[in-house]
Amino acid sequence: MTALAPHPDRLFPADPAERDLARRLHAAVADAPIYSPHGHVPASMLADDEPFPDPAALLITPDHYVTRMLHAVGVPLGDLGLARDGVPSPATGRSIWRRLCENWDAFLGTPVRFWFESEFSEVFGLTEQPSAQNADALYDQLTATLASPEFRPRALFDRFRIAVLATTDDPADDLEAHARLAADPSFTGRVVPTFRADRYMHPDEAGWAARLDRLAARADIDTASYAGLLAALRARRAAFAAAGGTATDTGVIDAGSEPLEAAEASRIHRAALDGSVTAAEAVAYRRNLLYRLAEMSAEDGLVMQLHPGVHRNHHRPTFDAYGPDTGHDLPAVGSFTVPLTPILRDFGTNPTFRLVLFTVDETTFSREIAPLAGFYPSVYAGAPWWFLDTPAAILRYRRAITDSAGFTKTSGFIDDTRAFCSIPARHDMSRRVDASFLASLVVTHQLAEEDAFTIARRLVDEIPRATFRLG
Amino acid sequence: MTALAPHPDRLFPADPAERDLARRLHAAVADAPIYSPHGHVPASMLADDEPFPDPAALLITPDHYVTRMLHAVGVPLGDLGLARDGVPSPATGRSIWRRLCENWDAFLGTPVRFWFESEFSEVFGLTEQPSAQNADALYDQLTATLASPEFRPRALFDRFRIAVLATTDDPADDLEAHARLAADPSFTGRVVPTFRADRYMHPDEAGWAARLDRLAARADIDTASYAGLLAALRARRAAFAAAGGTATDTGVIDAGSEPLEAAEASRIHRAALDGSVTAAEAVAYRRNLLYRLAEMSAEDGLVMQLHPGVHRNHHRPTFDAYGPDTGHDLPAVGSFTVPLTPILRDFGTNPTFRLVLFTVDETTFSREIAPLAGFYPSVYAGAPWWFLDTPAAILRYRRAITDSAGFTKTSGFIDDTRAFCSIPARHDMSRRVDASFLASLVVTHQLAEEDAFTIARRLVDEIPRATFRLG
Amino acid sequence: MTALAPHPDRLFPADPAERDLARRLHAAVADAPIYSPHGHVPASMLADDEPFPDPAALLITPDHYVTRMLHAVGVPLGDLGLARDGVPSPATGRSIWRRLCENWDAFLGTPVRFWFESEFSEVFGLTEQPSAQNADALYDQLTATLASPEFRPRALFDRFRIAVLATTDDPADDLEAHARLAADPSFTGRVVPTFRADRYMHPDEAGWAARLDRLAARADIDTASYAGLLAALRARRAAFAAAGGTATDTGVIDAGSEPLEAAEASRIHRAALDGSVTAAEAVAYRRNLLYRLAEMSAEDGLVMQLHPGVHRNHHRPTFDAYGPDTGHDLPAVGSFTVPLTPILRDFGTNPTFRLVLFTVDETTFSREIAPLAGFYPSVYAGAPWWFLDTPAAILRYRRAITDSAGFTKTSGFIDDTRAFCSIPARHDMSRRVDASFLASLVVTHQLAEEDAFTIARRLVDEIPRATFRLG
Repeated sequence: MTALAPHPDRLFPADPAERDLARRLHAAVADAPIYSPHGHVPASMLADDEPFPDPAALLITPDHYVTRMLHAVGVPLGDLGLARDGVPSPATGRSIWRRLCENWDAFLGTPVRFWFESEFSEVFGLTEQPSAQNADALYDQLTATLASPEFRPRALFDRFRIAVLATTDDPADDLEAHARLAADPSFTGRVVPTFRADRYMHPDEAGWAARLDRLAARADIDTASYAGLLAALRARRAAFAAAGGTATDTGVIDAGSEPLEAAEASRIHRAALDGSVTAAEAVAYRRNLLYRLAEMSAEDGLVMQLHPGVHRNHHRPTFDAYGPDTGHDLPAVGSFTVPLTPILRDFGTNPTFRLVLFTVDETTFSREIAPLAGFYPSVYAGAPWWFLDTPAAILRYRRAITDSAGFTKTSGFIDDTRAFCSIPARHDMSRRVDASFLASLVVTHQLAEEDAFTIARRLVDEIPRATFRLG
Repeated sequence: MTALAPHPDRLFPADPAERDLARRLHAAVADAPIYSPHGHVPASMLADDEPFPDPAALLITPDHYVTRMLHAVGVPLGDLGLARDGVPSPATGRSIWRRLCENWDAFLGTPVRFWFESEFSEVFGLTEQPSAQNADALYDQLTATLASPEFRPRALFDRFRIAVLATTDDPADDLEAHARLAADPSFTGRVVPTFRADRYMHPDEAGWAARLDRLAARADIDTASYAGLLAALRARRAAFAAAGGTATDTGVIDAGSEPLEAAEASRIHRAALDGSVTAAEAVAYRRNLLYRLAEMSAEDGLVMQLHPGVHRNHHRPTFDAYGPDTGHDLPAVGSFTVPLTPILRDFGTNPTFRLVLFTVDETTFSREIAPLAGFYPSVYAGAPWWFLDTPAAILRYRRAITDSAGFTKTSGFIDDTRAFCSIPARHDMSRRVDASFLASLVVTHQLAEEDAFTIARRLVDEIPRATFRLG
Repeated sequence: MTALAPHPDRLFPADPAERDLARRLHAAVADAPIYSPHGHVPASMLADDEPFPDPAALLITPDHYVTRMLHAVGVPLGDLGLARDGVPSPATGRSIWRRLCENWDAFLGTPVRFWFESEFSEVFGLTEQPSAQNADALYDQLTATLASPEFRPRALFDRFRIAVLATTDDPADDLEAHARLAADPSFTGRVVPTFRADRYMHPDEAGWAARLDRLAARADIDTASYAGLLAALRARRAAFAAAGGTATDTGVIDAGSEPLEAAEASRIHRAALDGSVTAAEAVAYRRNLLYRLAEMSAEDGLVMQLHPGVHRNHHRPTFDAYGPDTGHDLPAVGSFTVPLTPILRDFGTNPTFRLVLFTVDETTFSREIAPLAGFYPSVYAGAPWWFLDTPAAILRYRRAITDSAGFTKTSGFIDDTRAFCSIPARHDMSRRVDASFLASLVVTHQLAEEDAFTIARRLVDEIPRATFRLG
């Protein structure tokens, strides 16, 4: 067996002087509370506070970072617990866990392994690297661990020192779990919803009309008209804000934001309900709605997060069999400067408006995102996202973004995860990489040591709080 | 107060062996004269040799690198001295300077702060980092300093050891300041004009016809016809060359260079004067003119600099209120290989022709610029430009360019600045980064130490002189 | 004279701890046999086993990496031995060699010089850096060396420890040299053909019909019809496999792969033979053929290599005078995710199908290639190619690819060279860079040392053998 013992100096630079400083910078923020202003943990998990199911259902099946890599080395998704054609997977938690252990080497050098090693060691107390030999023993150990009260969601929430956890929610969501948490005097954490209206932006998608109906019921506003949809979205934004929300999120294939005249948008809305909408009209409608979401942000001050540029469900047969979020969403070529022209023309210097830009195409770091954040007071450079949420890419982000945007116009780290137990490992990774980057600036005399400490602390506290208007 | 004391080892690598060599390589070129073959300092500044106005008017208001970042953190441009709607800013030099000092932390880690620290310390003798507390005291100190004769432009020109300073000038410019400098036996510096015909390339722009008239008057050649415009441009190129110019510059949104038949270009020229030119015709006309400028370079040997790919004036309301060059020119996606095909097909191996390519999209370093410079004898890889004129990006440039173009086919450093007092800091930054890059090659045994010294010296002397035909 | 003595630690990191480990990792694989699964050495060179011609004809004239850089600094291609307009170059081997020696400094810092230094020293035993002064002496030394029996191709093949050498061959090639090698009991090496059908994919190209005829003759299948062409290609694939081939290769301007209905493809095929094919039809035909090649790979299991995105023959006058492969093939913007959708939809999870993706646009590393290889079991990330086959770019590749694809889904090194004597230097470069990358992961505690040794060994043995199904 091979020991699992993440090194206390992991991710720090090799040079001794740089490493020593990185270590001290990290130590200054290692125990700071976690602000998680964007992620996919459901509020109900904390509201219900039920024990987690088996280790595979917690750690593997729902995490497409993990399943995609196992799939890439030949493991069928059905062996990892994903239901096929609606039929539950015959795989057991134990067999799924075994698949991970057998293929543990495929993750060598990857951030998934880095997170898992931290998480297995520091959250779950494992002391051996997974392998085909110890798979069952580790599974038994994890199962026993998960059964203990210290591993209930709320206990972990406290242990992880989470200051704020933002969920991601549909406008039609009743936010019932958020309400339960708020009403529960025994829960003192802060869990806030995030308004994500993606599902109303594609009038040519199957189910769009039904979603409008659900939204109408929730908002008690007729959404059969375009004006009604806007009114319902506005009403729900207010409800999200009342529930503690400070931000919205939007994920679209491109950042196009050309507004339409109300009459034209209304016409397309009706055409979509009639089933006669064209593809071009649907694109125009979606881009207009992105503009309208920005307009609403300029009115109500909810921070607009934009995650554009992902080709969803690239492998149609896998989508048909296993559904979405199964590992074949793939990066598109990124573009911000041109497509965001209308939004930034009209709201870019509006002090109420705020826009945080995320990308899966790192060519936009120095070419688009940093220059935009380096002029528009409303624009912030979002943390590296998804495929780029890795030690090497975060360094590239800092090197490319700081030139034009400094540190102040970056968002602070965002874990964007549904893997609740990986949250501390992910934030710790970010803190280590930022400490290393700051140390490199100090050692090369581009930054004073005391300024590096100030920035390290701001990056995990003041900067995410200010960016996301968390108070 | 925090001391302002730029470290002598700044920008050198952390590794002791690498740092020691970088330090020695830098020392070998630290005091070498400055060749500045491309920039935006006006010749009249040196011809008049008047004292500089107040510190803010020298250091802040005209430098969009500075104002854009202050704007990004919430300072209105009017507070930085920019005239709004033609109404002079009510801000005083002192209040503008205060805005910089109050927001000094926003620049942490950025090249603007790096330049300012060097410049404040080494040019102006400041010993404290700016802050809200010492803003007034520093302002008084700078004001007193600027009043001394040692801080007149010519005195600084000598102190900065500028061997050649190229200005950027419109073809209709009378080059009067250049003539005064040339005729003045008390000024022994070399200040040369650069021919920049951008304003004649967009026949659909307001003011195009009026500019043609001014050019006609200057060249004494009727520009009402396309042939006349070409003749006038040729005549002015000759005048620029006679005034010491060795180069031209062109900044266009793309590098398209498809030539038109003379009849078609003439037709569009007339249509533009009639006010009936279409957008597509204007593009075709502009691309044809880029081709014609290359053709003229192949005739007269003026080195053609090309700075394509910037979206000008992205924020229309700021442009309307404050005018151009106010911080919201933003990088476009870069492209050279395909759009330059016509120019390179016809002049690429012509020994008279020379083309220096600049980019604000670093993806083109390894994909386009270096491979072009690595085949075409006429093509040179221009130094990293604008958003990329930073320590981190210069390193990326060297790492990406050297593979296919070596050092010989790069241009040497270009400061491209209107901030006269930052010129030494900018060149010193470049020399430090190049020393660091060369040291890394030597320490990893990819380059012999003596070759590194040779290259370090060539990069600041022979290479810019040869690239720009400065003799 | 300057000593030529490549340092044993070349390319290892500067940090002492990292360097020590890189040295040990490299030592573990330095003498491992070479798998060369993709390259351009002709099989006849080994079958004939004739002495090499003069040094220039071996080292300079046929290597466009070398000639393009000499051309970029002003040496006419005719001076380097290239025939112009069919007229043999008047340059002698000695004069060509002199041109390289005189311009040796132009290669400082480039991978060409790095390979040459290793090759000159380790293969040919030179002890001086080339220069104008020693050009003749070195030429005489090389000439004498090449005359010795130890420098015959087969002797070098053994000395280089080449385990497998893949050639690149046209489907109409008779593979006679491969047959001779296989039948020769005195040759125990493994030389395998690679099926490259590019020349049948462009029905609008001059000579397409004549090539179809040659293919028909070779396959004994009428290729006048589209169905016939497919049948002939299938037959030749089988012949290549029978001759030991395990892979195909395709180089196209883009990766578009939309299939056509057979009737439409047949119609375009006939139109092309009639001389009436349109440019758009030719593109559609080519993209359909790429799809069909993937379909065949899914049937016969030959590994599909894809090298898209090169603008061929950018400088038309050079092409007209000197022909193809003369240094002005230039990288295009790369794209995989969208254009490969049809192939991956239909064959992406087919266990028989395998697709190795290469690029000359490094922006696709993290944005497209690694995410594709990180989901599709069929997709592998090919080694950095051509302009990116350099120490600095290989490091960037590893840093960008490992995050999403680990090491397992990379191809192992590929030399892709026609410069036979540079093969050991190229593979050694790759092994040094990989050792350095692995050392950096270990020293920053992202990888255990024993795992680094395992990966270093797998990268030169198991991984290329498995990727290319070499057994």
